[in-house]
Amino acid sequence: MPLQNHHEILSVDDHLIEHPRVWQDRLPQKYREVGPRIIEDENKHHVWRYEGRNFPQIGLNAVAGKDPRDFGTEPVRYEDMIPGCYDPAARVKDMDLDGVKAAMCYPSFPGFAGRVFMQADDRELAELCVQAWNDFHIDEWCGAAPDRFIPMVMAPFWDIRASVKEIERVAGKGARGLTFPENPVPLGLPSFHTRHWDDLFSALEDADMPLCLHFGSSSLAPGFAQDAPFAVEISLFATNLMWTTSDLLFSGVLQRHPKLKIVLAEGGIGWIPYITERCDYTWERHRWYMDIDKETRPSELFRKHFYGCFIDDEHGVKNRHEIGIDRITFEVDYPHSDSNWPNTRRRAAQVLADVPDDEVEQMLSGNVRTLFNFGN
Amino acid sequence: MPLQNHHEILSVDDHLIEHPRVWQDRLPQKYREVGPRIIEDENKHHVWRYEGRNFPQIGLNAVAGKDPRDFGTEPVRYEDMIPGCYDPAARVKDMDLDGVKAAMCYPSFPGFAGRVFMQADDRELAELCVQAWNDFHIDEWCGAAPDRFIPMVMAPFWDIRASVKEIERVAGKGARGLTFPENPVPLGLPSFHTRHWDDLFSALEDADMPLCLHFGSSSLAPGFAQDAPFAVEISLFATNLMWTTSDLLFSGVLQRHPKLKIVLAEGGIGWIPYITERCDYTWERHRWYMDIDKETRPSELFRKHFYGCFIDDEHGVKNRHEIGIDRITFEVDYPHSDSNWPNTRRRAAQVLADVPDDEVEQMLSGNVRTLFNFGN
Repeated sequence: MPLQNHHEILSVDDHLIEHPRVWQDRLPQKYREVGPRIIEDENKHHVWRYEGRNFPQIGLNAVAGKDPRDFGTEPVRYEDMIPGCYDPAARVKDMDLDGVKAAMCYPSFPGFAGRVFMQADDRELAELCVQAWNDFHIDEWCGAAPDRFIPMVMAPFWDIRASVKEIERVAGKGARGLTFPENPVPLGLPSFHTRHWDDLFSALEDADMPLCLHFGSSSLAPGFAQDAPFAVEISLFATNLMWTTSDLLFSGVLQRHPKLKIVLAEGGIGWIPYITERCDYTWERHRWYMDIDKETRPSELFRKHFYGCFIDDEHGVKNRHEIGIDRITFEVDYPHSDSNWPNTRRRAAQVLADVPDDEVEQMLSGNVRTLFNFGN
Repeated sequence: MPLQNHHEILSVDDHLIEHPRVWQDRLPQKYREVGPRIIEDENKHHVWRYEGRNFPQIGLNAVAGKDPRDFGTEPVRYEDMIPGCYDPAARVKDMDLDGVKAAMCYPSFPGFAGRVFMQADDRELAELCVQAWNDFHIDEWCGAAPDRFIPMVMAPFWDIRASVKEIERVAGKGARGLTFPENPVPLGLPSFHTRHWDDLFSALEDADMPLCLHFGSSSLAPGFAQDAPFAVEISLFATNLMWTTSDLLFSGVLQRHPKLKIVLAEGGIGWIPYITERCDYTWERHRWYMDIDKETRPSELFRKHFYGCFIDDEHGVKNRHEIGIDRITFEVDYPHSDSNWPNTRRRAAQVLADVPDDEVEQMLSGNVRTLFNFGN
């Protein structure tokens, strides 16, 4: 049987749009003017202003509920968005409408993993901005409906010691997952092949908090050609997560951090069998002359550490046993253009038409409960 | 039944190492000194010398028959390689040993698609070098055993008019496929989203000659981190061909060139269902506001124009009907590290264990005969 009424959906990848006062309500007085705030520009558009620069996209890709024929125009004022984008009470209603029990919501203005703060001039302010977002997210957003939102946080990734401190602070407040760049290298930070991140990964292990990697969060756009239509980039974003997967599998990180969990967001799952098989093939032939683990097959590491998620991936669902039912989660992607809201359940029922009940349950909610220790 | 004795193997991706006199035998006298020739450097290594520069890899990755434990050291003299690398008569014996009927062999010193000549200083010499390689390949290499080698050529891609002229010339001599960069952009050439390549594609349609794209031929190395072990890059090269696939599917090239055939080399096939499904999903939602074909689904274009090949892709073979049996070819990759030579048939028999006879026949030889109009 396909999706049943009793099947709950716990989405590991949704998005919130920060309301205008997220930072103004939390930053110390001296930083209010230079910290993130919403202004109206000369075109009467709402834009974020931070450190003297304008950030024109308030709700990039916030198209929830639009007909695809109307995609392509971004909201320029909060009034252009449905309130569920920025108001947690309205979001809960939109989740009810869609039959979604709980959701983990990535940041918008800061980038999916806090890139804007990584690239800021004033590090002290940037660190306060990270803390403010985390407090907003846990206290205000998730606090509005603690049984409906899975708390996600970021950290000041330019400073490992401060990152560890922040992870410990927010773990105490109920944070369940850390959003981290799909790869730190394009952001000018050390790669997974250094020991640089070890203390951060250990802190995550101690807090039992997965590392959540959203495609595109490194700021790298996939594709060869600058003059390609945007469809090329959209269709290829999962290749970023393929790069991330191989990078981590051959990095030694997972051997040093046996309890680390990696959650890949919005990348789909249909590519996982090919990439893990190819990593094994490469490992079988090339491990001898490289400084990599010669004992553990990459696919074994994947099956122990990684989790993928899908929206609408028929090939992936068909091959779910090859991927591992316990590796698969589900996402809604509200309010972005990949989302099927408010028809998430209707579409999921089609994709899951041939899947047994217990497997639907595991992929749509069971794995997420265990992974994020949520709602058990 | 799996692979039977009567099943022939026609490989669409093998490699030849140019012998020392390929260009010296063919260039006009005035260009012999500056054109490609083999010298012995101060370490007694054989290196190519061209336009005053040394190119140290004579047989990059020429490891045929080695135990993987001995991979990692490149041949530095011709004597370090088995003769089948550079001698067509010896190659035929190695193909016999492996049970391989015919092979299409990519260039080595020039790069898989002639990059070295594209980047040369003297364009007149470079064009003569391209012609010399083509004449060597058709007359000398394939000429040694015309029923065993499928003739492949390159063109002076920096000059469209000269490229068309060269394609017409070699088509008259029996050329069956054109090696072209997996994407021209990283080599400083116009993208597939311009009309720049239209005359070249039309010439290929007229000559019924497929465009052969070998992964890595654009010189772009996949992966985020420079300090990653080489295994990461090796495991990810197919993501280049995923980029190429989406790029071409959304380019309009295939609508303007309805008879153009695209052959993807060494990329495997297991990722094809995910990428084509994702391209369709993107197209369904985003086509309205972009200047792309609003009538034809990307997956339909794939099923009409593209061909993939595999060596050892269990996931791809399992999902062959989703990809399309008529889209799938096979490769040996002699003498490179992905190859199973001299155990190609033994390994193929394992991978094809559950595949019906007629489907094995089609994937291992039938599609190649039709595609390259070879040996019918």
